[in-house]
Amino acid sequence: MNADTQVATERSQEICDQIRRWILRCTTEAGSGHPTSSLSAVELMVALMFDGTFRFNFEQPEDPANDRLIFSKGHASPLFYALWAAAGKIDPNELMSYREFGSRLEGHPTERFSFTEAATGSLGQGLSIGLGMALAARYLDRSPSRTFVLLGDSEIAEGSQWEAIQLAAHYKLDNLIGILDVNRLGQRGETMYGHDLEAYRDRIEPFGWRCILVEDGHDLEQLAQGYADVNAASDQLGRPVMMIARTVKGKGVRSLEDQGGHHGKPVGKDAVADTLERLGSSNDSIRGEIKRPGAYQCNPPAIRTSKTIQYSIGDKVATRDAYGNALNRLAAKYPQMVSLDGEVCNSTRSKRFRDEYPDRFFEMFIAEQNMVGVATGMALCGKTPFVSTFAAFLTRAFDQIRMTPYSGAAVRFVGSHCGVSIGQDGPSQMGLEDIAMFRTLQDAVVLYPSDAVSTEALVDRMAENDGIAYLRTTRGKTPVIYNNDEPFQIGGCKVLKETENDQVTLIAAGITLHECLRAHDALSKCGISARVIDLYSIKPLDHATVRRAADETQVVFTVEDHFPEGGLGEAILTSLSDHSTPVHCLAVRNRPVSGSPEQLLSDQGLSAAKIVESVERWRNVSSKRSKRDLASPERNALN
Amino acid sequence: MNADTQVATERSQEICDQIRRWILRCTTEAGSGHPTSSLSAVELMVALMFDGTFRFNFEQPEDPANDRLIFSKGHASPLFYALWAAAGKIDPNELMSYREFGSRLEGHPTERFSFTEAATGSLGQGLSIGLGMALAARYLDRSPSRTFVLLGDSEIAEGSQWEAIQLAAHYKLDNLIGILDVNRLGQRGETMYGHDLEAYRDRIEPFGWRCILVEDGHDLEQLAQGYADVNAASDQLGRPVMMIARTVKGKGVRSLEDQGGHHGKPVGKDAVADTLERLGSSNDSIRGEIKRPGAYQCNPPAIRTSKTIQYSIGDKVATRDAYGNALNRLAAKYPQMVSLDGEVCNSTRSKRFRDEYPDRFFEMFIAEQNMVGVATGMALCGKTPFVSTFAAFLTRAFDQIRMTPYSGAAVRFVGSHCGVSIGQDGPSQMGLEDIAMFRTLQDAVVLYPSDAVSTEALVDRMAENDGIAYLRTTRGKTPVIYNNDEPFQIGGCKVLKETENDQVTLIAAGITLHECLRAHDALSKCGISARVIDLYSIKPLDHATVRRAADETQVVFTVEDHFPEGGLGEAILTSLSDHSTPVHCLAVRNRPVSGSPEQLLSDQGLSAAKIVESVERWRNVSSKRSKRDLASPERNALN
Repeated sequence: MNADTQVATERSQEICDQIRRWILRCTTEAGSGHPTSSLSAVELMVALMFDGTFRFNFEQPEDPANDRLIFSKGHASPLFYALWAAAGKIDPNELMSYREFGSRLEGHPTERFSFTEAATGSLGQGLSIGLGMALAARYLDRSPSRTFVLLGDSEIAEGSQWEAIQLAAHYKLDNLIGILDVNRLGQRGETMYGHDLEAYRDRIEPFGWRCILVEDGHDLEQLAQGYADVNAASDQLGRPVMMIARTVKGKGVRSLEDQGGHHGKPVGKDAVADTLERLGSSNDSIRGEIKRPGAYQCNPPAIRTSKTIQYSIGDKVATRDAYGNALNRLAAKYPQMVSLDGEVCNSTRSKRFRDEYPDRFFEMFIAEQNMVGVATGMALCGKTPFVSTFAAFLTRAFDQIRMTPYSGAAVRFVGSHCGVSIGQDGPSQMGLEDIAMFRTLQDAVVLYPSDAVSTEALVDRMAENDGIAYLRTTRGKTPVIYNNDEPFQIGGCKVLKETENDQVTLIAAGITLHECLRAHDALSKCGISARVIDLYSIKPLDHATVRRAADETQVVFTVEDHFPEGGLGEAILTSLSDHSTPVHCLAVRNRPVSGSPEQLLSDQGLSAAKIVESVERWRNVSSKRSKRDLASPERNALN
Repeated sequence: MNADTQVATERSQEICDQIRRWILRCTTEAGSGHPTSSLSAVELMVALMFDGTFRFNFEQPEDPANDRLIFSKGHASPLFYALWAAAGKIDPNELMSYREFGSRLEGHPTERFSFTEAATGSLGQGLSIGLGMALAARYLDRSPSRTFVLLGDSEIAEGSQWEAIQLAAHYKLDNLIGILDVNRLGQRGETMYGHDLEAYRDRIEPFGWRCILVEDGHDLEQLAQGYADVNAASDQLGRPVMMIARTVKGKGVRSLEDQGGHHGKPVGKDAVADTLERLGSSNDSIRGEIKRPGAYQCNPPAIRTSKTIQYSIGDKVATRDAYGNALNRLAAKYPQMVSLDGEVCNSTRSKRFRDEYPDRFFEMFIAEQNMVGVATGMALCGKTPFVSTFAAFLTRAFDQIRMTPYSGAAVRFVGSHCGVSIGQDGPSQMGLEDIAMFRTLQDAVVLYPSDAVSTEALVDRMAENDGIAYLRTTRGKTPVIYNNDEPFQIGGCKVLKETENDQVTLIAAGITLHECLRAHDALSKCGISARVIDLYSIKPLDHATVRRAADETQVVFTVEDHFPEGGLGEAILTSLSDHSTPVHCLAVRNRPVSGSPEQLLSDQGLSAAKIVESVERWRNVSSKRSKRDLASPERNALN
C-alpha cells in the first residue's frame, strides 16, 4: 500500500470508529433499534461512500447522474443515519433524536428523511426498488448513475430478491450493484448458509451476475480491492454486480461479535462502555468526502399535446381496452409515463402502449412483487409508472404496495379482470378484494370507471395527480355512456338518474353501474323511482352528493362486483356513518365459481333483475313495517 | 426396448392421444380455456401417472401414503381433468361440462373437484403447497408419499418458487419432485430462457436440487428414462428433484405448435378438425392404471388433555406471550397442531412451542409467501398449521392467503406487532391493514383478543374450528381482565360495562379495549355513561349484542389500532347498516411514525384521553343540535 492509500485507509478507519460510536450512542439513547445489524456493515458502507465509488452532488440532489444508495436491510438505520452524519448532512446531535416521536430519523428509513431513497424495513424489497432506479438510469435517463443496494443475508430468502436477480440480468443492468452483508445471523438464529460465501455466489452467479467475494468485510484494504473490482470496466456482458462480504454481526462490540440472541436490542451498558473506551475519544467533527458524479447532460423529453377522447355513445368497449388506448393517447402529454406489466399485457391491453412506445414499456414477467418495487424505484426517479396486471394478482405485492406511501412513491396501479364478471376462468383470476386492499393506503386514489370515456379521462387524472392511484378495469365490453368531453375528477361522481321523487338510491361503479341503469328502468315500470349514481371515485369519495341522495331518498343500495368487506359498500357506509338512512350492500357473497359473466352476476345478486328483486323486497318489508307501525305505534320494530 | 416396454409405451401413447382429444373437445365446447398450455404437458403427466411412478389408492383417498399431484400451472386444467378421466374417475362426458356454471370442473382446479389437491391458477404457488405436503409426509407422517408438482416455465419467474426451491433443499425433501414443462412461451411471448434447459438446471441445481433433463418431453421413451432416474434410490443427500423437460406449446395441433399468440384461447375449428382426424377415432373407454402405494402403518398421535389457563386478573401479559403459551398448553389436545414461523419466532413467541415441541415447529425463514403455501399443503394433509409472523408481513402473502378458501385449506394465521402501538420501529413493521385483508376471505374467522386469557381461549377455538382463522396479537403488555374459566366463542363479544342509562357505546378490541375501559371511567366522572364492548370476534360478529347497544344508546364509537378502511369500524358499520344510530370510527388516520406506544396512540386519537375528547365533542355537538331543533323544529339539521 502506498502512502496516500495508507492515509486514506487510516482516515476511513477513523470514520468507521466514529460511526460505531454514533450507532451505539443513538440506539442506547433510544432504548431500541438494531445496533448489531448496523455494526456488521460499517466498513462496507464507509468504503463505498467515502473512497470514491459512490458519487453524489449535494447541490443538485435531483440530478439523474447522482448515484443512489438503498438500505434493503432497513433496520440498519442507525448506520444509515450515521453515514449521512459523517457526510456532513446531519448534525451528529440530531442522531440522538433517533426513533423519537417527531424525529425525521425513524426506526426504519422513510421519506421524512430526505436522503432516504426509498422506505424499507419490510425486508427483501430494496433490490427491486434499486432495479427500478437502475432501469430508469440506463434506459430512460441514459445517465451514468449507479444504484447500490445494501442487502442482508437473511432477506435473501425472500423470493422477491430472486425476482430482481433474474430480471436485472435480463435487462443487463451493470449499473446495479448489490452489497451482501453476510453476517451469518438472522433474527432468530443462523441463516441457511451461514458464513459460506461460495454458497451465495454459486446461487447468484448462474443468474448472470458478476460476483465479487470479500473474505473479510471489515478489512478496508480488501474492500478497496473489492470496490476496485466493482468499478472495473464492465465486462461487456452487462452483468449486474453482487459483492458478497463475510462480516460479523455486532462487529466492534467484543462480547457480542458473531453471537446470536442480540438481534434488535440495544447494546448493554457495560459493553457500550467497554467499546467506547477501546475506540478512544470521540471525534464528532470527522467528515468523509463524497465525490461528485461526472458531467451529464439531462435532456428531459418535451411535453406535447395529446389527442382527444374519441368514442360514440352506445359503442361497446371494454374499459381495459380504453386503458390501453388511454396510455397511447396520453403518452405525448406525459412524457415521463412508462408502463410496466406482468406478462399479461395482451390481457391488460398495455400491449397497445408497448407496440407504440416500446422504449417506455418494460416487461416484468410473472413477478408482481418485483414489478411494484421497480415501479417504486422509477417513481422516485421522477417517472410516471403505470403498473398493470390482473387485479387479483396485485394482491401478490400487497407488502410492496403498502410500503409505497412511506417512500412517497407515486405509483399508478391498474388491475384488470375485476370481479366475478370475468366469467369462466374462475376465482383464482377474479379480483374480489382489490378495492379493499387499495383503500387501506393512506391518501391513495381508488377509481373504478364504468365506460371507456370515463376510463380515459381518469387515466389522465391519475397521470396528472402526483400520488398513488389505483384503477380497476373490466374484462368484458360495456356501453359508452358519456360524451367525450364529459369532465371527471378525482373525488367526483355522476348522478345519472335523478328526480325530485326518488325513493331509492342505487350507487355502483364499473360493470354493476350498467346493471343499475337497467334496474332503474325496470323499477320505473314498477312505480319505484331510483336515483342512480356512478361512484367512479371510491376514494376520495363525493360525500356531499352521496349525503344528498341519502337525505332525499328512503334507502341506499350499493352494488359492487367485489367482496362485501372493505369495498364500495363499506366506503358508502363510512360516508353515511352518522346518517339514519339505511344502506343495503349488494356484493359477491356466494362462493365465486366458473360460469358465464351473466350467470355469475345473477348468482351473486348483482344483475339488473336481482337488483330489482332486492329493491322490491325492501319495499315490501318497509311497507309492512309502516303498516305495523301505524297499527301499533309503541312497537319498536327492527329491520 | 423389450416387448413389454413396447406394449406399455404404445398404450401410453394411445392414452396421450385420447387425452389430446379430450382437451380439444372440452375447451372447444366451453369456448374458453388454455388448450395449448395443456397440450405441452400431456406426455409428462401420462408417463408420471400411468407407468408406475405415481401411487394412489382410490379406496383410501385420505391415506397418508398416497402420492400427491399438484398442477402449479393450474390453467392446464383441461389436462388435469382429462388425466382423471383416463384414470376412470371422471366420466368423459362430464368433461364437456368444463367451465360451465355449476360444474365441478372449473376453469382452474378448486376443491369442488375432489382430486384437486390444492386450488391453483394464481401462478407460482404450487411448489410451496407441494413442499408443505412433502414436509408433512417426511417429518410428521413419516410416510413414503411423494409429491409431484407440474410447473410452468413462465411461473419460475415468481419469487415464491425460489423460496420453495431454497427451503426444500434445506429440509432435504427428496420426496418432492418438480416437473418443469419448458414450452418456451408465456402468455405474452417468450420466457426469459426459452428452450434452454441448461439455463434452468444451472440456476436450480446450485440450490441443492437433483436435476434431470429430458430433451424431448413428448418422447415416452425419454420420459420413461427420466422417471426411472427420478425413482432411482436417493443419492443420500436428500435432494429434491427437478425434471426439466423441453416441450412444445400446442403439441399435437400442427398449426399451433411452438407458435406465440395462442395462449388461453380455444383451438380454431379447422385446426381441431385436422388434429382429430390425424389422431384417428376416439377411444373414450381407454383407461390407464395407477399403482397403489406400498404398505404403510399410519400411527396418528393420541389426543391428550391440556392444562387449564393460568393467569391472575391484573397481571400484565402481552397477548403475543399468551399466544406462545397457548401453543404449548394446547399441544396435547391438538396433536396435529404444528407451528410455522418466518424467522421471527422470538418476537411472535412461537419460539416457546419450538423449544417444547421441536418436531412440530418448522422454521420457514424470511419467506412469507412460501410459508403460507406450506401451511396450505399441511392443512390439506390433515395437520392444524398455525402460521405466525408480524401482522404487517402477512401482507407479503395476500395472494396465497386469498387462495386458501378455494382449496378448503384450514390455515390458522397469527399476526403479531399490530398497530401503531408497536412503537419506535415505525410503520414498516406495523400491521395496519391486516384486519381488512383477512376480513375479505369468505368464511374466515377474524379474532383480536384484548388479554391473555381470551387469547388462550381463542387459540383453542381456532384449533378446534375446522376453517381459516386469523388472530391478531399485541407487542406490549396489557392487563389480564378475564377469569381463567371465562368462555369465549367465535362470533361472540363481551359487554364489560353496561347500565340501563348508557348514552354512548364504545366498541373496541385488543389494545384499544383497555383505552376504552379507562375512557369509560373518565367519562363516568363527567356524567357520561358508556357501554363498553370487547369485540374480540370481528368476523363473525355478534350482531345482536351490537344492535342492542345501538338501540339502547345514542351513539356508537368504534376504536381500533388499524387503518379506518376495512377494519373493525367498517365491520360495525356493516352490522348497523340499516340502523339509524350514528357510528363514529376512531382509527389510525395520521401518517404512522416512530415514537413511543403511548405517544403514537395519543397522536392517532386512540388513547383514553383522546377517546374522552371525541365523546365530549360529540356530546357538545349533539346538545347544540338538540337545542337548535327545539328552537326551530322545521329545520332539517345535518350532522
